[in-house]
Amino acid sequence: MDNLSTKTPQQGFELAIKLARMGVKYTQPDMEVLKAGRKDYAANPEFLIQASQVIAIHFQTVAKANNYWQE
Amino acid sequence: MDNLSTKTPQQGFELAIKLARMGVKYTQPDMEVLKAGRKDYAANPEFLIQASQVIAIHFQTVAKANNYWQE
Amino acid sequence: MDNLSTKTPQQGFELAIKLARMGVKYTQPDMEVLKAGRKDYAANPEFLIQASQVIAIHFQTVAKANNYWQE
Amino acid sequence: MDNLSTKTPQQGFELAIKLARMGVKYTQPDMEVLKAGRKDYAANPEFLIQASQVIAIHFQTVAKANNYWQE
Amino acid sequence: MDNLSTKTPQQGFELAIKLARMGVKYTQPDMEVLKAGRKDYAANPEFLIQASQVIAIHFQTVAKANNYWQE
Amino acid sequence: MDNLSTKTPQQGFELAIKLARMGVKYTQPDMEVLKAGRKDYAANPEFLIQASQVIAIHFQTVAKANNYWQE
Repeated sequence: MDNLSTKTPQQGFELAIKLARMGVKYTQPDMEVLKAGRKDYAANPEFLIQASQVIAIHFQTVAKANNYWQE
Repeated sequence: MDNLSTKTPQQGFELAIKLARMGVKYTQPDMEVLKAGRKDYAANPEFLIQASQVIAIHFQTVAKANNYWQE
Repeated sequence: MDNLSTKTPQQGFELAIKLARMGVKYTQPDMEVLKAGRKDYAANPEFLIQASQVIAIHFQTVAKANNYWQE
Repeated sequence: MDNLSTKTPQQGFELAIKLARMGVKYTQPDMEVLKAGRKDYAANPEFLIQASQVIAIHFQTVAKANNYWQE
Repeated sequence: MDNLSTKTPQQGFELAIKLARMGVKYTQPDMEVLKAGRKDYAANPEFLIQASQVIAIHFQTVAKANNYWQE
Repeated sequence: MDNLSTKTPQQGFELAIKLARMGVKYTQPDMEVLKAGRKDYAANPEFLIQASQVIAIHFQTVAKANNYWQE
């Protein structure tokens, strides 16, 4: 990851998701453990909302980095 | 999603909701699983407050992107 | 909601509360369901603190929009 | 509350606490209900940490409003 | 607390911890109650992560106050 | 820690993780207690998401400190 630049907010959102997942992977590098946990929780709205919140924080950072993709 | 511009704060708020839901959909793309979970939780104030918080973070980003809709 | 301008921080705080409640209403538009849930939780400090936090995030946005009501 | 100006960070912190409590009071205006709930939770570290977090968000806003009390 | 200036990020981090603890102390001034609660929770990762989050928010404020300790 | 400068966002992300862990270590300096707790929770998605959120807040700070690594 060289920089936080993306062409559109859509790509910026995808970068935010990537950053959110990176934070989880650094904390739990074992992919098997991650997958096992994900099955239980992927239907849990509380967990989904929390995940959306981490993405929101990263999207805030990426949006600023891209000057809100303003012309 | 080409840019974060909206004409009014009301539309900006709706964009924030859209972004909050996008974060949930990326984490759980299966619409059936999402709907099933939503029935249980949509009456739960804790879940509603959490959802409002994710919207608040996205609204903060969208408001900045629109320079707070100041004239 | 045309803009985020308010004359005083007090009014800005009330706008923040309005925005926090708007986020809840968009997620659960059914007023009866909302009221039913509110009775159970309105005495729960955890829920009250969470609500105060959503207001705090919106107040941060509104304060910036009003340039902190500085002269 | 006319403005967010305070002379020192200490006073700014106290204003942040006042704002955090205001958010709780607007959500639950009944002082008796509030007091009853507070007894149970005031010894609960989770609740105390959450309260500290709301104060932190408000302190961030107040600090910006005061330009970080820089000379 | 006269100002938020510190010489290094390390000292800024320590100020952030001090502010996080100040928020807890204002909410629960009784030191005995605080200590009693701390024993139970100090081994609880959820509580530790939450505490780290409050510190993160305060560190964000202190870092801005110090212009990120840039030369 | 002398400053928050890093060459790339990747290194900035790693600094954010370091700051998130620092917050946990200051709250619970006993490494044995920390390790014991970590085994239980490292497979818990809720805990992993929370940890990712603290990293996200610190990454926001580090990104601003580095002017988003823009050329």
